[in-house]
Amino acid sequence: MKAHSISMLGTGLIAGFYAMTVHGQRGRDRVGVVYSRTRDRAAEFGRRWEIPEVTTDMLAAIRHPATDVVVVALPNHLHEEAVKAVAAAGKAVLVTKPLGRNAAEAKRMLDAVEAAGVFGGYLEDLCYTPKTLKSIRSIGDGVLGDVTWVRSREAHPGPHSAWFWDGRLTGGGAIIDLGCHCIEIIRSFVGKGNRPLQVMCHTDTLVHPITDEDNAVAFIRFESGAIGQFEVSWTFRGGMDLRDEVAGTNGTIWLNHFLRTGYEMFTAGGTGGYVAEKAETAAGWLFPVGDEVSELGYVDMFSDMFDALDAGKSPRETLYDGYVVNAVMDAAYRSARSGSWETVDLFAWRGGSTPRIATSPETFDGQVVIKREVLPDGREKLILKDPATGDFTDHVVGGG
Amino acid sequence: MKAHSISMLGTGLIAGFYAMTVHGQRGRDRVGVVYSRTRDRAAEFGRRWEIPEVTTDMLAAIRHPATDVVVVALPNHLHEEAVKAVAAAGKAVLVTKPLGRNAAEAKRMLDAVEAAGVFGGYLEDLCYTPKTLKSIRSIGDGVLGDVTWVRSREAHPGPHSAWFWDGRLTGGGAIIDLGCHCIEIIRSFVGKGNRPLQVMCHTDTLVHPITDEDNAVAFIRFESGAIGQFEVSWTFRGGMDLRDEVAGTNGTIWLNHFLRTGYEMFTAGGTGGYVAEKAETAAGWLFPVGDEVSELGYVDMFSDMFDALDAGKSPRETLYDGYVVNAVMDAAYRSARSGSWETVDLFAWRGGSTPRIATSPETFDGQVVIKREVLPDGREKLILKDPATGDFTDHVVGGG
Amino acid sequence: MKAHSISMLGTGLIAGFYAMTVHGQRGRDRVGVVYSRTRDRAAEFGRRWEIPEVTTDMLAAIRHPATDVVVVALPNHLHEEAVKAVAAAGKAVLVTKPLGRNAAEAKRMLDAVEAAGVFGGYLEDLCYTPKTLKSIRSIGDGVLGDVTWVRSREAHPGPHSAWFWDGRLTGGGAIIDLGCHCIEIIRSFVGKGNRPLQVMCHTDTLVHPITDEDNAVAFIRFESGAIGQFEVSWTFRGGMDLRDEVAGTNGTIWLNHFLRTGYEMFTAGGTGGYVAEKAETAAGWLFPVGDEVSELGYVDMFSDMFDALDAGKSPRETLYDGYVVNAVMDAAYRSARSGSWETVDLFAWRGGSTPRIATSPETFDGQVVIKREVLPDGREKLILKDPATGDFTDHVVGGG
Amino acid sequence: MKAHSISMLGTGLIAGFYAMTVHGQRGRDRVGVVYSRTRDRAAEFGRRWEIPEVTTDMLAAIRHPATDVVVVALPNHLHEEAVKAVAAAGKAVLVTKPLGRNAAEAKRMLDAVEAAGVFGGYLEDLCYTPKTLKSIRSIGDGVLGDVTWVRSREAHPGPHSAWFWDGRLTGGGAIIDLGCHCIEIIRSFVGKGNRPLQVMCHTDTLVHPITDEDNAVAFIRFESGAIGQFEVSWTFRGGMDLRDEVAGTNGTIWLNHFLRTGYEMFTAGGTGGYVAEKAETAAGWLFPVGDEVSELGYVDMFSDMFDALDAGKSPRETLYDGYVVNAVMDAAYRSARSGSWETVDLFAWRGGSTPRIATSPETFDGQVVIKREVLPDGREKLILKDPATGDFTDHVVGGG
Repeated sequence: MKAHSISMLGTGLIAGFYAMTVHGQRGRDRVGVVYSRTRDRAAEFGRRWEIPEVTTDMLAAIRHPATDVVVVALPNHLHEEAVKAVAAAGKAVLVTKPLGRNAAEAKRMLDAVEAAGVFGGYLEDLCYTPKTLKSIRSIGDGVLGDVTWVRSREAHPGPHSAWFWDGRLTGGGAIIDLGCHCIEIIRSFVGKGNRPLQVMCHTDTLVHPITDEDNAVAFIRFESGAIGQFEVSWTFRGGMDLRDEVAGTNGTIWLNHFLRTGYEMFTAGGTGGYVAEKAETAAGWLFPVGDEVSELGYVDMFSDMFDALDAGKSPRETLYDGYVVNAVMDAAYRSARSGSWETVDLFAWRGGSTPRIATSPETFDGQVVIKREVLPDGREKLILKDPATGDFTDHVVGGG
Repeated sequence: MKAHSISMLGTGLIAGFYAMTVHGQRGRDRVGVVYSRTRDRAAEFGRRWEIPEVTTDMLAAIRHPATDVVVVALPNHLHEEAVKAVAAAGKAVLVTKPLGRNAAEAKRMLDAVEAAGVFGGYLEDLCYTPKTLKSIRSIGDGVLGDVTWVRSREAHPGPHSAWFWDGRLTGGGAIIDLGCHCIEIIRSFVGKGNRPLQVMCHTDTLVHPITDEDNAVAFIRFESGAIGQFEVSWTFRGGMDLRDEVAGTNGTIWLNHFLRTGYEMFTAGGTGGYVAEKAETAAGWLFPVGDEVSELGYVDMFSDMFDALDAGKSPRETLYDGYVVNAVMDAAYRSARSGSWETVDLFAWRGGSTPRIATSPETFDGQVVIKREVLPDGREKLILKDPATGDFTDHVVGGG
Repeated sequence: MKAHSISMLGTGLIAGFYAMTVHGQRGRDRVGVVYSRTRDRAAEFGRRWEIPEVTTDMLAAIRHPATDVVVVALPNHLHEEAVKAVAAAGKAVLVTKPLGRNAAEAKRMLDAVEAAGVFGGYLEDLCYTPKTLKSIRSIGDGVLGDVTWVRSREAHPGPHSAWFWDGRLTGGGAIIDLGCHCIEIIRSFVGKGNRPLQVMCHTDTLVHPITDEDNAVAFIRFESGAIGQFEVSWTFRGGMDLRDEVAGTNGTIWLNHFLRTGYEMFTAGGTGGYVAEKAETAAGWLFPVGDEVSELGYVDMFSDMFDALDAGKSPRETLYDGYVVNAVMDAAYRSARSGSWETVDLFAWRGGSTPRIATSPETFDGQVVIKREVLPDGREKLILKDPATGDFTDHVVGGG
Repeated sequence: MKAHSISMLGTGLIAGFYAMTVHGQRGRDRVGVVYSRTRDRAAEFGRRWEIPEVTTDMLAAIRHPATDVVVVALPNHLHEEAVKAVAAAGKAVLVTKPLGRNAAEAKRMLDAVEAAGVFGGYLEDLCYTPKTLKSIRSIGDGVLGDVTWVRSREAHPGPHSAWFWDGRLTGGGAIIDLGCHCIEIIRSFVGKGNRPLQVMCHTDTLVHPITDEDNAVAFIRFESGAIGQFEVSWTFRGGMDLRDEVAGTNGTIWLNHFLRTGYEMFTAGGTGGYVAEKAETAAGWLFPVGDEVSELGYVDMFSDMFDALDAGKSPRETLYDGYVVNAVMDAAYRSARSGSWETVDLFAWRGGSTPRIATSPETFDGQVVIKREVLPDGREKLILKDPATGDFTDHVVGGG
């Protein structure tokens, strides 16, 4: 296992989470350089996270001779320039979410990285939460049968930084900020090889005086017949709502990543202090999260990225995944305007083919069995369908 | 307060819940007659619920001289005939959900009842759960501000009776069975006077060998801009999932009616026994509900119906409400076929008008305030938008 | 079923809950008279609950010719006089909890009622919550095996009325106020026929400037070997904490009656309004209860009382039960002073005998089986104990 | 930060968790040698965790020239010999819980390590869960006021290995296995400087055919007046119950470490597979934990140990803490036999002194204020106590 030296581009909230993760616990990798457009921010970030070198020269940060990995944690409109520069420098590049403001921009980044032959990773932390990883493993083991439906919800009262609110810089509103998480979470559960075909989306701006959406809901139709559903909001009250639900033909999974994780605290009086990301109050019932960088997936995400880099393999989340997410978001915005299902346009689909969800109906005496139920007296009731007439009947069997 | 004498039409699961409720606790009203098409079922139901008279003659049950209220708890395709007969007999009529197989059928029932001038009530129990009633009161008190979004979810592994699976008799699949609940729950939270304008719906038949949908998801757009979202499934695993969520500009409500109500039980070994409606297992972790007829709304529903009848007022849930629900379901089925938003067609809207959700943005130094946040050092950060340029900036104030 | 006419003695919080229950829904029984020592309070209570007659003459209320049931909802130190007067009047008497300030007082009431031959009921609502009743039924069905341990916890920030704080009037502090509930809940779960033998208790006054305990914890040892554990507090922060846990040899039950019942609400801004009994805040995350009088057991309690009266049977909670609870509390106070286990003194035990919890150990090859576990490879691991040497070994069997 | 090379003594469940942690994520420290009494177990453990050297010679493992830290993960009766050997070798020693079978044994280990002047750490993972660490920080910040009561509960159906059941090897039953966790969790919440004075404990053997206790409950009285309460069981059904509750004068904390952490899964059919430590079933509702080694505290524990070693400081959990835990357990066993409170005997108390919990009562017009409540009409009700007579009265103020 190699120890990596990282240049961090950006000093915002997400860059802080990244530095906290890499420098947390007993990790062998270190951030060696941090870049910000503003000298003060770079210096403060460097002090806080004990980073030896700070700079306002992005190219210098990228080309630093000790650096072998560059993390792009900049506002969305600055991703493309940065990614191309890293690719040109021949370094591994890890890009925060969303990859681009739209699929075209994302594709240009993907192309640049693939052309340069460097390692690329998509920093989608919420696909790496320990609960999510274990759930994906359970689904792979068949615990849920075929996945039929996934709900991913991310909602809070709105972002902390000014640039997030400017759709010209970000590419949109709550969908670009939060929907990108949900879409990739949904893909992780229905299967990365399950092609997203169409999107139906509704957006609205209900509370904030902005031009982009502060609320959106959408359905994504996958090749298997599975439906993904996302709900994103910048107007939620009560903290940060991060929940996923998966329904399968054989089981169910419910994940709550933030507000109900077995950590409940009441306090009568304000002592200030940070409670949890986007908590709204400092008194009353509060719901902190234990180790946010672990529970929100940052730890497993960076382990996967660096392990994959060491092993010469693709990480779990690639820049192509980031591109697919952008393509789904493009379709969502188109659908919100057209009021119809819109096709997800992909320049290429690399995921193969997923068969339609199917079950072979059981038969009984030439009739199709719809349902079996054990009655209180131990006998069994079958609901049967006559394939000729389409009529349904009850039939009680057994006992003894 | 008058004691009412009821003729119960039907002896299925729902009729049993109704009888259990009316004859439960120390109630003053009684079921005096029960009707079933089958003599044995009528007799068994009568014995079980201590009903003095049983009959296989529907008209006799309706016209019974002691009866002043008739409860229609029959399969959907038999509602119209029964309701018209009750109206003709000049008795009060309470009809189980859904009112009709479609809006046209529902309207004919509504017309018959209104023409006869008799009392009509729509037995939508889930709008009467104590949690729902108290939540509606809180929303009326302004606790949530304007409601922006409601999610209502009802899912279980599929109905118990054969006729439920036959769309020719019911009018559809999971939407007709479960969606009717969700739609009226959503209307209760966004406001009964908030006109449902359009529906976008996706349906599929993923597991059961039937022609109607076993899964559906939909959005309903209301006049205020609020969005209702329903998810119904006959393929859910894990029991019966009954949850509602309401988001408002000032608050949030989460209701869980079944699987997580503060009652958790583990048992290592099967002793049989009824755990809860649609529970799938009799061992492992189980989640019973305390008093199902109270917690699922039956008690408050019948109290409202009989109290309204005594007072000469409309109940909270009227046959017109049942008609609106059918109209929304009709639009959902149309949308599932067209893949587009479909208009909710109503012969008349009796709910008045609801203004668009609106907030007056605060200004600061001629800029629009997007968000205020208290910083750890006690100062306040404002995110501002320049109305001329559309640019966003951070501005820190105060402290001291 | 007869309709009863009630005289209510007392107009405090608990009398209000009782009136709300009896006059709630479509009940046939009515409060006909209310008595208070204060005319204004009697008048206000009468108006609020639509009670036709109000009086400040307790004997007049008891002897009112229309009254057949008297509910004693007075402060503790007034129970004895009231109960004796009702017994003397030959009316049915229902007494709120605790029965007396101590076992001697409780015994005098019990004696008076039994000597008069009138119906007596002990109004311990928390033994009648629907969750509790259903759990008791499950335990009776063997779902949990033998009950080994029960925890009952009741905690809140302290009572609403002045007299509650005065141990001279009540008989003690938090134990008398809250422990009486817990003790009878515990008895309901370990079995009413399971004699409470000894109590070990610790009390302290940590927060409030009073002479009686504002916190107490205790263990109760029952004849079967089962342990009851209660925790009561007048210094809890966060609302009212009402939880019970039952462990058995075959299963587990967890009940939450108040703060986590599937009803969760966040509100950013105060609109005032009653949230729930003993809620501490009107903003932030709040946890209301649906129908408090149903979920806290009042509805089922009065149904049981009046049904038992109609049937000429004993109710589920008798005055003898109230006496046993007082005897357990007396032992708790003695133990808190002595620092040792103290015997529960009972003038007579009417519950029969309960055998010691026992399991017949399985044997394997002459060894005692301590535990069986299925290994990941399908084989089974047995932990065995050699009865001769007392040595423990692992033994893996099977597969196939 | 230095990279440490570890010799692991032992290959059981806990040694596996330790190796999983140290070798997990991107850690810089490595296990270089593993020792087991059995060659096969050593070899299998080495293969599984990629440990280069395996041995059945404990002294060789300890003295291995590359090793600077030895982890003692052996059965309890083997701790003393191993710890003394490590101390003699002049290496840092980290010992799993409990430190000894009793306080005398623990003290001999403590003395050996302190005499040798080597680094010693007590591997009490549950004091290091992220939830616990953050809670301790909140308590330190005054969020809860003074801690009045802590409940720590650990219960499961019994241990996996034969030796755990043999009190001669372990020092006892469920208290030695589980109570040691609870005691140190309680100390972490009431404050490490808060001296444990006395213990009251009840034990019983209710289910398993063993001589040691399979159930125990206890109270611990601390110098401040705070009460710790632990409940341990080897007969719990439903998985592993790991919960802590803290009550303070200003707030409340509830932690659930295992069965309810926002991860809920239902599966209809067995696919086998590991769900979570001590889960009892592989179907029905299951409650896995995301990243067990993180959420149960192993990650933060080893980070603290190695960071403290690097910094030349004491870790959060020292061998003296382990000794105190043994002393509390000794008192618990004595109390279970005597039926009285027993003193915690400590050869020395290193924690200083903690004042009695105290609040200065507010006064109003010369009366003591017991409670303030805001009435629905905005006025405030004060419950007052007359210091002369001890009488309590209500007093309503304000409004306006």
